[in-house]
Amino acid sequence: MNKLYGYWRSSAAYRVRIALNLKKITAQQLSVHLVKEGGEQHKATYLALNPQGLVPSFVIEAQTNVDDNVVLTQSIAILEYLDEVYPQVALLPVSSIDRAKVRAMAMSIACDIHPINNLRVLQYLTQHLGLDDEGKKNWYQHWIKQGFSALEEQLENGVGQYCFGNDVTLADLCLIPQVYNAERFNVDLSLYPNIERVNRACLKLDAFIDAAPENQPDAS
Amino acid sequence: MNKLYGYWRSSAAYRVRIALNLKKITAQQLSVHLVKEGGEQHKATYLALNPQGLVPSFVIEAQTNVDDNVVLTQSIAILEYLDEVYPQVALLPVSSIDRAKVRAMAMSIACDIHPINNLRVLQYLTQHLGLDDEGKKNWYQHWIKQGFSALEEQLENGVGQYCFGNDVTLADLCLIPQVYNAERFNVDLSLYPNIERVNRACLKLDAFIDAAPENQPDAS
Repeated sequence: MNKLYGYWRSSAAYRVRIALNLKKITAQQLSVHLVKEGGEQHKATYLALNPQGLVPSFVIEAQTNVDDNVVLTQSIAILEYLDEVYPQVALLPVSSIDRAKVRAMAMSIACDIHPINNLRVLQYLTQHLGLDDEGKKNWYQHWIKQGFSALEEQLENGVGQYCFGNDVTLADLCLIPQVYNAERFNVDLSLYPNIERVNRACLKLDAFIDAAPENQPDAS
Repeated sequence: MNKLYGYWRSSAAYRVRIALNLKKITAQQLSVHLVKEGGEQHKATYLALNPQGLVPSFVIEAQTNVDDNVVLTQSIAILEYLDEVYPQVALLPVSSIDRAKVRAMAMSIACDIHPINNLRVLQYLTQHLGLDDEGKKNWYQHWIKQGFSALEEQLENGVGQYCFGNDVTLADLCLIPQVYNAERFNVDLSLYPNIERVNRACLKLDAFIDAAPENQPDAS
C-alpha cells in the first residue's frame, strides 16, 4: 500500500491528505512527530527516506519484487504527481493559462508564506535571534498578511465558490491549511472576506473535513 | 510581443530567462528595480500587474483586439506554463515519477531556500529585528546549507551531467540561480561537489550564460 508520512499540524501534509481524499486514493498514514524529542524528522531512519527532513513524504509501493519503493517528497511535487496519475477529480483546470493562474495562487502560499513561517524558521528565530512569543507572532502574522492581501485581491476578481471557479483546485489545497495556521496565530481573517468565503465553502466538503489536523489520529 | 518583468539579480526572474532562452521564445525584458527608491515593485503601476509586488511577471499579449493581455505571476507557474505551451526543449521528463523527482528538487529550492532568503525577508530582519550584516550572512548561509546538503545527497545518487540525467530540467533552472546567490553570500561551495559539477555543466550552455545576472542590460 502507498504510505504518507505526515504530521497532523503540518500544512504541507494537510494539502496531500485533502488530495488523497478528493481522489479516493488509499494510503497508510504514518506520523512523524515534528516536536517530540527534538523532532522525529531529524532521525536517521526518516532522513534516509527524505534527506530534507521535512514532511510529507509519499511512498509508492513497488509493483513487483524486483522494483524498489519510490519515495516522493515536497507536497507540490506530490500533488502534481497525484494529479497526473489519478486524473479523476482534477486539481488543475484544462487550459494552460488557467492552470498557470491556479498554480500561481498555490505558489504564492507554498513558496511565499508557508516556508517562511515553517517550524524550522520559527525555531531559528527563537534559538539564534532570541525572538520571544510576541516577536514570533508578529513575524508569522506579517507574512500571512502580505500573502493574504494579494490573494484577497485576486479572489475579489474571481468568480465561483472556490479559489478558481466552481471546482476545487491546487490553490484551495494550499489555502485551507494556511488559513488553519493563520487562525492558530490569531490573524484577523475578517480583513479577507473572500478568503473566509472560500475557506467556509471548502470546509463543507468531506475531503477537507477528514483531512483537517484535529481529525488526524496523531492530533494532540 | 510577450513581456517579462524582472530584475537582473532576481533569481526567480533568472529562472524564467533561462527557460525563454532554452525554448527560444522571444519576450521583451522590462526591468523592475527592486532597490532604487524603496523598490519599483511596490509602485501602484506594478502592483496593478502583480498584487504580490514580486518579480517576475510574464505578460502574454492579447491575440485579438477584443482579448485582454494575460499576466502570469510566480516563476514556477510561469515555467510550467511555458513547458506546456512550448514543449520543445522540455523542462520535465516524461514519466510521472521522474517528473515528481525533478519537481521535488526544484521545490526544495523554490520553496525552502529562495523565499526565506529573499530581499523582503532580509529587509524585515534588518528593519524589524535589527540584524547586522554578519547576522544576515549567517541567516542566508544557514538556509542555503540546509537545502544544498539535502540536494547534494540526492545528486550523489543521480547519474548524468545535470540535476536529473543528461537533459536540463526545471531543477537546473532553480539550482543555478541559487548557486549564483550562494556565491554572493560567500557560501563555501566546495562542500557540495555535485552541485558545483552541475553548475559548471549548465554554465557552459548559452541559454544559461545569456540569462546570467551580469549579462542583463539592467545589471549595475
